[in-house]
Amino acid sequence: MNCNVPTDIVFSFTGFAMRGGRTDIHHDGWGIGFFEGAGVRLFVDHQAAVASPVAELIKRYPIKSKNVIAHIRKATHGHVALENCHPFVRELWGRYWVFAHNGELNDFNPTLNGPFRSVGGTDSELAFCFLLQELRARFGDHAPALPLLRAALAELVRAIAAYGSFNMMLSDGTALFAHCSSKLCYVVRQHPFLTASLSDEDMSVDFAQVTTPQDRVAIIVTEPLTTNESWTSFAPGELKVFVDGMPLEDSLA
Amino acid sequence: MNCNVPTDIVFSFTGFAMRGGRTDIHHDGWGIGFFEGAGVRLFVDHQAAVASPVAELIKRYPIKSKNVIAHIRKATHGHVALENCHPFVRELWGRYWVFAHNGELNDFNPTLNGPFRSVGGTDSELAFCFLLQELRARFGDHAPALPLLRAALAELVRAIAAYGSFNMMLSDGTALFAHCSSKLCYVVRQHPFLTASLSDEDMSVDFAQVTTPQDRVAIIVTEPLTTNESWTSFAPGELKVFVDGMPLEDSLA
Repeated sequence: MNCNVPTDIVFSFTGFAMRGGRTDIHHDGWGIGFFEGAGVRLFVDHQAAVASPVAELIKRYPIKSKNVIAHIRKATHGHVALENCHPFVRELWGRYWVFAHNGELNDFNPTLNGPFRSVGGTDSELAFCFLLQELRARFGDHAPALPLLRAALAELVRAIAAYGSFNMMLSDGTALFAHCSSKLCYVVRQHPFLTASLSDEDMSVDFAQVTTPQDRVAIIVTEPLTTNESWTSFAPGELKVFVDGMPLEDSLA
Repeated sequence: MNCNVPTDIVFSFTGFAMRGGRTDIHHDGWGIGFFEGAGVRLFVDHQAAVASPVAELIKRYPIKSKNVIAHIRKATHGHVALENCHPFVRELWGRYWVFAHNGELNDFNPTLNGPFRSVGGTDSELAFCFLLQELRARFGDHAPALPLLRAALAELVRAIAAYGSFNMMLSDGTALFAHCSSKLCYVVRQHPFLTASLSDEDMSVDFAQVTTPQDRVAIIVTEPLTTNESWTSFAPGELKVFVDGMPLEDSLA
């Protein structure tokens, strides 16, 4: 989720969490990272999301954030353990970066010769460490402007995606980068707001009741979360950058 | 807390959390980091611990861990914000490191020229980044053996403590390092276990009922948590290393 004002994710998370063991087979752990200012709240659990008391807490406690990344895991590489749950967090350039990956990489064995090392055993954490290592190698100790960062990321994710499937999301709390290898789609919720109904749970919400006309929220997912909104599919190989609740035009990013 | 088997911290945390706004003045946020294998669960909140729904969850949900670091904040340097809540987490040598600081550093402005940068505005996070930067500068890309690590840390924390008060705890999930500038004490709970009564809340627990004779748990705090256990004070300037629920002899560490 990427928004122009801090927004709670209770509605979308409720549907999403059902996929962790009830309406889908992703039951090998889950996690969610919320930016709050420069800080991050990260909740990870190696229990299925449907059974997790921490997931229960998040459904009840409306944490407001402009950038949220959530993930439900089906173990492929790396066993079921806390250190293998997404999202992963590292610090680069004095900002936290939050990363989650859907898909599978094969024979991806980059050399990590810098300060970012994997703690767990997933292909995903390896890809994240490699991304940050290469960004630091290109731009040194200072964050580049967004267009430069986007161009570098586009090149790096393309190189990684050559090893398999690399649907991924990455955020530093100001922008959300989303790359589609095989499946990703998004919806932008903005004025005039409608009532949305979850695909995975019998629940609807009239967003007009809980928003102001200025609010704008982008939700990016592998599978649409609602049945009555118009989701836009990414093209395979596409990297989109979301800022303030909408995708930037490619020419501006 | 440092233990030889994964142990829940519900009892000690219940008393500790009372200090976040009820029995003490530390009400500017709190946090707790639990190692689970190589992974870390980190809960931080800029609300007072007594008012926090996340603290409520931890009191009810017995997360078991061999190394836990918790902190309740009274803001000195850095405003009340999530990014300024302890403990802080970074990765070095493919392990997560969890750090918390009690006290205040003045005119401490080291140059951070490596990969560890502060996200927030506290003297504490700066000290943590400096520690990791200097450890990496000394030992390169591979973790040294514990005696070498301990010697390097002893030197570094002494240098930092010269800038003020630096009671601190640091763990990589295998050992817990505790340094006393002005106040720190510990108790080792082991067979035969006794009943302990909290100082900050009307609550007792008979540890004999919830342990096996092999269990050993060290609790290290700035102020004793119980009224009827024998707490050992650190000497000012002392760095102790806890492994498997007990302090290592200085000659072994």
